Amino acid sequence: MTRGERLFAEFAGTAFLLAAVVGSGIMAETLSGGSVGLALLANAFATAGVLYAIIAAFGPVSGAHFNPLVSLAMVWRGDLSKADLFPYIAVQIAGAVLGVVLAHLMFGLPPLMEGVKPRSGASQFLAEIVASCGLLMIVLRVSAAQAPAAVACYIAGAYWFTASTSFANPAVTLARALTDSFAGIRPADVPAFIAAQAIGLGIAYFALRRAR
Amino acid sequence: MTRGERLFAEFAGTAFLLAAVVGSGIMAETLSGGSVGLALLANAFATAGVLYAIIAAFGPVSGAHFNPLVSLAMVWRGDLSKADLFPYIAVQIAGAVLGVVLAHLMFGLPPLMEGVKPRSGASQFLAEIVASCGLLMIVLRVSAAQAPAAVACYIAGAYWFTASTSFANPAVTLARALTDSFAGIRPADVPAFIAAQAIGLGIAYFALRRAR
Amino acid sequence: MTRGERLFAEFAGTAFLLAAVVGSGIMAETLSGGSVGLALLANAFATAGVLYAIIAAFGPVSGAHFNPLVSLAMVWRGDLSKADLFPYIAVQIAGAVLGVVLAHLMFGLPPLMEGVKPRSGASQFLAEIVASCGLLMIVLRVSAAQAPAAVACYIAGAYWFTASTSFANPAVTLARALTDSFAGIRPADVPAFIAAQAIGLGIAYFALRRAR
Amino acid sequence: MTRGERLFAEFAGTAFLLAAVVGSGIMAETLSGGSVGLALLANAFATAGVLYAIIAAFGPVSGAHFNPLVSLAMVWRGDLSKADLFPYIAVQIAGAVLGVVLAHLMFGLPPLMEGVKPRSGASQFLAEIVASCGLLMIVLRVSAAQAPAAVACYIAGAYWFTASTSFANPAVTLARALTDSFAGIRPADVPAFIAAQAIGLGIAYFALRRAR
Repeated sequence: MTRGERLFAEFAGTAFLLAAVVGSGIMAETLSGGSVGLALLANAFATAGVLYAIIAAFGPVSGAHFNPLVSLAMVWRGDLSKADLFPYIAVQIAGAVLGVVLAHLMFGLPPLMEGVKPRSGASQFLAEIVASCGLLMIVLRVSAAQAPAAVACYIAGAYWFTASTSFANPAVTLARALTDSFAGIRPADVPAFIAAQAIGLGIAYFALRRAR
Repeated sequence: MTRGERLFAEFAGTAFLLAAVVGSGIMAETLSGGSVGLALLANAFATAGVLYAIIAAFGPVSGAHFNPLVSLAMVWRGDLSKADLFPYIAVQIAGAVLGVVLAHLMFGLPPLMEGVKPRSGASQFLAEIVASCGLLMIVLRVSAAQAPAAVACYIAGAYWFTASTSFANPAVTLARALTDSFAGIRPADVPAFIAAQAIGLGIAYFALRRAR
Repeated sequence: MTRGERLFAEFAGTAFLLAAVVGSGIMAETLSGGSVGLALLANAFATAGVLYAIIAAFGPVSGAHFNPLVSLAMVWRGDLSKADLFPYIAVQIAGAVLGVVLAHLMFGLPPLMEGVKPRSGASQFLAEIVASCGLLMIVLRVSAAQAPAAVACYIAGAYWFTASTSFANPAVTLARALTDSFAGIRPADVPAFIAAQAIGLGIAYFALRRAR
Repeated sequence: MTRGERLFAEFAGTAFLLAAVVGSGIMAETLSGGSVGLALLANAFATAGVLYAIIAAFGPVSGAHFNPLVSLAMVWRGDLSKADLFPYIAVQIAGAVLGVVLAHLMFGLPPLMEGVKPRSGASQFLAEIVASCGLLMIVLRVSAAQAPAAVACYIAGAYWFTASTSFANPAVTLARALTDSFAGIRPADVPAFIAAQAIGLGIAYFALRRAR
């Protein structure tokens, strides 16, 4: 695959991922009649569905990272060249922002808004460590053939078992600070989320290396 | 496979697809006690289930397009002969109408009704572009082995993340104008939906070609 | 595989299938607080889950029919010997009854009860034809590797898109006449259901043979 | 794989399993607005998602047992050495307890609590026999490639079709006695659950051996 194809795959995949996360959150909140449980179930169901599809479609092209943590782990493991790391992260963030804009426009909202949902405190911080550590362990251990189902299933579960509903992705976190909807996050809470995600990546990577 | 087998597969598969979309919509609206969120969750769950099964069963026979957009893309890519395009589309539409009739008769309704649900405006138009573009990117990139799960998962997600609940299929759109139920659409809104779907197909096809 | 192993697989698989259908129906009705939609969603989700597991586990042993319609089709196709047909059907029915008994005892109910839920009329009759025709088309077309997911997904969808919630199986129908719970059926309505299922099998079998 | 890698896989996998079971139970109870049906649906959905991911990721490393019953069956079948049995069980229990602690801390609760939910009586006892017998039949019959989906799907179904919501795992049962939340169990009820699970294992193992 050419570099252009790989970067386009990361861009398009991350855009659809964010359109799914934010768009299904808006739809879910609108239709759930105040039942946050029903809304989160629909949000997790839709996110997992789209994740499966985009990893199956773009995995053979770019690796289907859609996540700077995954790209960084792949550089450490030697599966992504260092020269590709920053371009990958740049298009992931750009795609993520485009996905949020598309979600907003599809539902008749302003293209970008400032997130207002507070997500902070020690519990949320720990939740992002656990969520990211688990995601990276899955990604680092699973075969390419099983990656679409394993990642989609993990995230579907992690929406429910972590107190933060598992962002576990710095590009996703940044983009979700640009929506004042179900999936949003207050910009002030973004740095701690990304720090926790980095810690989770570190634990996963070094635990798998040490366990021999 | 003979041409008769391939056309029968497209006909039968599209009939089951529409029976699933419309039938589960009727059942969902009846049983959900006014919770549109629960109804859409059941509708998406049932549609995805049947999509998986019919693509797994008929994929090796006809390619399991069940969608004129997909057949057109396959002609462009050289995987379907030009001579097969119109027969494919014709049996897809005929199958889709049969599916709506079966759904209605199974629930004791008149065979065909006129859709009354308005689905129009810029947001819906954009939603159909996004939904169709995503579907075609998945279809064009995914391997045959992963097509059943990838398409079913994508559509399950797209019911929720697009404002139009993702028709993304001109044969489906035409047939859904023939039902006055949960899945219906006002006939007057059909042309814009199909135009948006064609735009989505174009963006997907040319984006994947240009990204090299 | 020995004949004993194959018959045990059909017996055990059908027992778990009915325990799942009836048991999850009881649990769903108990926990759904009157929302039939939520109950049917849980019932379909649980049935599909168990179907996937038992077809994956017992498919390589016995073919994982768990359904006299499927065994009959396999005899027609030459994949099951005529001498095995009646033993298969006998253990399917015995397993199905055991499954109902287990479901009842797990929930503190009498081992067997008479079904009281009326399921009759032209709509229900048509629904069983459509449900069975679709199931048999899937079963006859799908590869062994994709059978677990295709059948489980189809049934999950068919619970919702057919007015009868898709029995599509004479052994299941007989056994469900022995429960006065969510999944039950009035014994008087059983013969018409089985007749409709046989018609569905006939349509599927001959349509696939003729379409060449 | 080294022994250290295998033990770490059992430890980490069981920790994520319990974090998923207990964490999603807490989230589900919090968000379901009193609908136990919706809470159990979310709990089953999340548990199955994480199970799929951890079996896909760690299966090639340790066999992905995460369950003393499975490890014991694997010793009987010759797929695990006797010398590995106690280390496997020890790290499964340790991982399970860590998972409960993580779930509690992620939701701002004390690290460990005493379970208070009574789960006793003949129906619950039978339910654990059935649940464990089914799980072991699936595990013993299914290929390694289909294990992630088969086990996850079975457990998703078994949450609903057994009266006990299918613990089916002594390490999970012990750890769930340490939480006073949706997934908890009264410590006094643990011994009978584990006895029933052992009976279920015995029935599955000897039924599969005898059926020839």
